[in-house]
Amino acid sequence: MNSSERLKIAIVGSGAVGSYYGALLAASGQDVHFLMRSDLETVRNDGLKIEKEDGDELHLQPAQVHGTSSEIGRCDLVIVALKATSNESLLDLLPPLLGETTWILTLQNGLGNERFLSRHFGGGRVLGGLCFICLNRVAPGVVKCFAPGYIVIGEREGPPRERTRQLESMWRKAGVKCHLADSLAEARWRKLCWNIPFNGLTIAAGGIDTESVLADAGLREEVFLLMKEVQVIAEAAGSSIEDAFLERQLEVTYPMGPYRPSSLIDYEMGRQVEVEAIWGEPFRQAVGLGVPAPRLQMLYRLLTSLCRRRAS
Amino acid sequence: MNSSERLKIAIVGSGAVGSYYGALLAASGQDVHFLMRSDLETVRNDGLKIEKEDGDELHLQPAQVHGTSSEIGRCDLVIVALKATSNESLLDLLPPLLGETTWILTLQNGLGNERFLSRHFGGGRVLGGLCFICLNRVAPGVVKCFAPGYIVIGEREGPPRERTRQLESMWRKAGVKCHLADSLAEARWRKLCWNIPFNGLTIAAGGIDTESVLADAGLREEVFLLMKEVQVIAEAAGSSIEDAFLERQLEVTYPMGPYRPSSLIDYEMGRQVEVEAIWGEPFRQAVGLGVPAPRLQMLYRLLTSLCRRRAS
Repeated sequence: MNSSERLKIAIVGSGAVGSYYGALLAASGQDVHFLMRSDLETVRNDGLKIEKEDGDELHLQPAQVHGTSSEIGRCDLVIVALKATSNESLLDLLPPLLGETTWILTLQNGLGNERFLSRHFGGGRVLGGLCFICLNRVAPGVVKCFAPGYIVIGEREGPPRERTRQLESMWRKAGVKCHLADSLAEARWRKLCWNIPFNGLTIAAGGIDTESVLADAGLREEVFLLMKEVQVIAEAAGSSIEDAFLERQLEVTYPMGPYRPSSLIDYEMGRQVEVEAIWGEPFRQAVGLGVPAPRLQMLYRLLTSLCRRRAS
Repeated sequence: MNSSERLKIAIVGSGAVGSYYGALLAASGQDVHFLMRSDLETVRNDGLKIEKEDGDELHLQPAQVHGTSSEIGRCDLVIVALKATSNESLLDLLPPLLGETTWILTLQNGLGNERFLSRHFGGGRVLGGLCFICLNRVAPGVVKCFAPGYIVIGEREGPPRERTRQLESMWRKAGVKCHLADSLAEARWRKLCWNIPFNGLTIAAGGIDTESVLADAGLREEVFLLMKEVQVIAEAAGSSIEDAFLERQLEVTYPMGPYRPSSLIDYEMGRQVEVEAIWGEPFRQAVGLGVPAPRLQMLYRLLTSLCRRRAS
């Protein structure tokens, strides 16, 4: 893969994240193929619409959509944007897309996804990315972006290699701000500093948005105390996160207004919530490292019960 | 007051607890007056019905019901069975009932009620009681008892005095098992070992009964870990609770089956939940004593948010 080539890219999991980034990559000239299920017919007929934060609209029409991986065939790059709760399905979905030199970039939430992909498809090809973005899928084939933010990509282990830099330039060409992570693990822990409290408390406190969480002094304190727990686990796992970063996570949340995190939306729609990737795996790491995480544990247990009941 | 006299008793707050114990006291020959609001007309017409756990029914007809305290006038004993969330209303309700020698026995949940009553009506007359019982008010004027359990009464401070023994004999005559607490504070902390986890988690985990909490291994562990936190706070507050007591709280809950604690029922009906008495005041005591209580704190914050939203 070479930054000047036109890349053949498969987007596996075409929810808000997959549709948004896939559409931007396609608009920048890449050969993007979307693997879809529920929205397949709609997008085949009407294309993909991205409503940007500045009021602009990107309409990708036609979009190359497919119902099976074998229709797509081997790619240069596979972007996994499926929910982590569906990881088992990747065992069937990915093989037809993979050649010797195909890279896999997972943009999934939480911990454990790179490990899962490496175990089944070889660690050498796996890279990870984190999306700091506010998106909602507002209708089939229509994604609204509230804040474009940026993505962070990195090697599964160790500092960025040449290929990571090629991916960075691919994102740049698509107009996506992209940072290279010296440590993907650290980047993931940093993202969890936001996701663990906000995605969790918005659900557990009764389906309230981030603005309402922050407006409640008691819950705001819980947000911070949960972040502190994550900071201590991350530290024990080898990723150092400074206090100022935690404070900043609160600050950047105020301007988001009445934002409903993706997990809350999943919960309210009765869809599966990524409980294990966002809360379960970090909690298990805390246990493995001998770090107390009472708040994370309670939140994890409550969310497990709440989401099981909601989805049933 | 003398154990052979017929006592004039006011029941302030005639929900499940007040109606149940008031009816038993009246049936045992005491002169019991119920202060009522919402069920006043129903009970005036139809009396009070207590469906006992063994299938027997106690029908108190007529019941002496009143809409105002001044109708009742001075009593020998005032039993407060109002929800702790309505304590402020006692400032108006109690004075007409109190003479020089009137005792006040609060059967309310949680911490802080004896202190409130003492502050406003004089500590010398205040006693406290705890009800270990499974009751639900199933209709206006109708209370169903699932397990009669027992009550524990004690002085606000220090060991039982003669008057506490007189109250004990009053309860005995009414067929209510009654234990004297050497330390009311310790008895309250023991009760909180059950109420804090079970009343709280049944709400926070999505409105599930105690059987469902215990059937979920993660939540069952949270129950125990919450109890351990309460144990540590109680110890710091001077009340020692042995581990075997905590284990027993789990054991006695299994036979209760799919029990819905009173706080959960209040929550689901959109009524006020005693969040401050059951979770807030114990948490504040933990803070005051410098004892970490992360689980209690998170549960308290979540319940505050959940109950505020539900009641609004």
